[in-house]
Amino acid sequence: MSSLTKLSYGQRAAKHSNPAAKLLLETIERKKSNLSVSVDVTTSKDFLAIIDAVGPYVCLIKTHVDILEDFAPGLVEKLQALSEKHDFVIFEDRKFADIGNTVALQYSSGVHRIANWSHITNAHPVPGPSIIKGLASVGLPLGRGLLLLAEMSTEGSLAKGAYTEATYAMARANRDFVIGFIAQQRSNAVTADEDFLILTPGVGLDVKGDGMGQQYRTPKEVVLDSGCDVIIVGRGVYGKDYSLVDQIAAQAQRYREAGWKAYLERIAA
Amino acid sequence: MSSLTKLSYGQRAAKHSNPAAKLLLETIERKKSNLSVSVDVTTSKDFLAIIDAVGPYVCLIKTHVDILEDFAPGLVEKLQALSEKHDFVIFEDRKFADIGNTVALQYSSGVHRIANWSHITNAHPVPGPSIIKGLASVGLPLGRGLLLLAEMSTEGSLAKGAYTEATYAMARANRDFVIGFIAQQRSNAVTADEDFLILTPGVGLDVKGDGMGQQYRTPKEVVLDSGCDVIIVGRGVYGKDYSLVDQIAAQAQRYREAGWKAYLERIAA
Repeated sequence: MSSLTKLSYGQRAAKHSNPAAKLLLETIERKKSNLSVSVDVTTSKDFLAIIDAVGPYVCLIKTHVDILEDFAPGLVEKLQALSEKHDFVIFEDRKFADIGNTVALQYSSGVHRIANWSHITNAHPVPGPSIIKGLASVGLPLGRGLLLLAEMSTEGSLAKGAYTEATYAMARANRDFVIGFIAQQRSNAVTADEDFLILTPGVGLDVKGDGMGQQYRTPKEVVLDSGCDVIIVGRGVYGKDYSLVDQIAAQAQRYREAGWKAYLERIAA
Repeated sequence: MSSLTKLSYGQRAAKHSNPAAKLLLETIERKKSNLSVSVDVTTSKDFLAIIDAVGPYVCLIKTHVDILEDFAPGLVEKLQALSEKHDFVIFEDRKFADIGNTVALQYSSGVHRIANWSHITNAHPVPGPSIIKGLASVGLPLGRGLLLLAEMSTEGSLAKGAYTEATYAMARANRDFVIGFIAQQRSNAVTADEDFLILTPGVGLDVKGDGMGQQYRTPKEVVLDSGCDVIIVGRGVYGKDYSLVDQIAAQAQRYREAGWKAYLERIAA
């Protein structure tokens, strides 16, 4: 594992040149939280309630605004207000996966206008480097950052081996805009000279899978053993009854503590 | 190349069990058109004008409703009315690429409610088989069909070799819902016993690329030489001035003729 995993988030923030990556690293350091909550609900009411409950304990809120039945431009303003109130970064988990011309339109346009409000977004590298070119044409002027999906947490994922290696190469060739990866581990291919953030979904303290192919690992496995930077947790934090905001907040605190403890162990080791 | 390429679209329609695949094959036969137009514009006005102009000449309209700035539920009704008027199938080119639970929500919910109106959609196989499971849980009861992206037309695409082979295997294991592939050629791995449709983007008669990584081939190369079933054309049909509807209709006719001629040569050869 690279020596990058021995640096504090704050040290890395000071050296990073991409505004979105710098903001995320600074936020992690300031809030002592490497927890991102993935808010996968279908109504604005639940969406905002969960974010308000977990907001104090997260560095990053991960969204899928395309599953919100009642999405409207006003929702973005409310999300941005919560981002100010609780000091978190916004990551629309859009998983762009089309040709350059199309992703540029999907990122900038449509009813969601993702580039206007999401500090960070992500893309699959499968179309080749043109997907980065298309997204960067929109996102770079706005100070945004892009994560590439180098690996996935699902059973039978095809993002492995040569595919994952090619993803690293595409990232290295576009370091102004590509700030890191969605991955299950920090690769040796990523060195201290190249600070790529590793954000890891499929994190759970209590269960092993969701019956739809998702597989879970603990914060310790992800941050300490595998050298990842941000743990992404969904149902593990907010369960199925979204009205239990105190319980949701308590779960967020629990994951935040587990993630931060694993990080402190890592930099001390 | 398999013997499937010697059968007529009508013969294949008669044998296909998936309702969306059957509908598409019947439409191709009835309209003598294997042309799909990809309508990549950002306003409803242009979107509907282009579809109304090309409608008589296409079997399939390919959409990206997430780039429409003024998308509203009423637009879907207008699209469906045009589909009735001109007798074409609808394919939202969503390129789903997330875990099973998320794609099920993206397909059924959100402001776009894709499963409600799009006969066919597509997905990247990269998350593994769970993406098919998630989408099928929504689409199968509605009689929908799914295409997997086995290859892409962009430079440096990672959808190749073992990745593409794994895509075929995933399709074979889910033949009730997976009706074919987005690909550049018909593979020997697809036999006459397994009728998978091959839809091919990156088709152009006049240009070689778009400056954003897209590469073009002719209808003859795609249908006759490579054994594909449907040619997908965008800018090549509607150019940049969407008010020139007569010219757009003429271009659609031109592509339809080129695609059909290549098909007739193929089944006669």
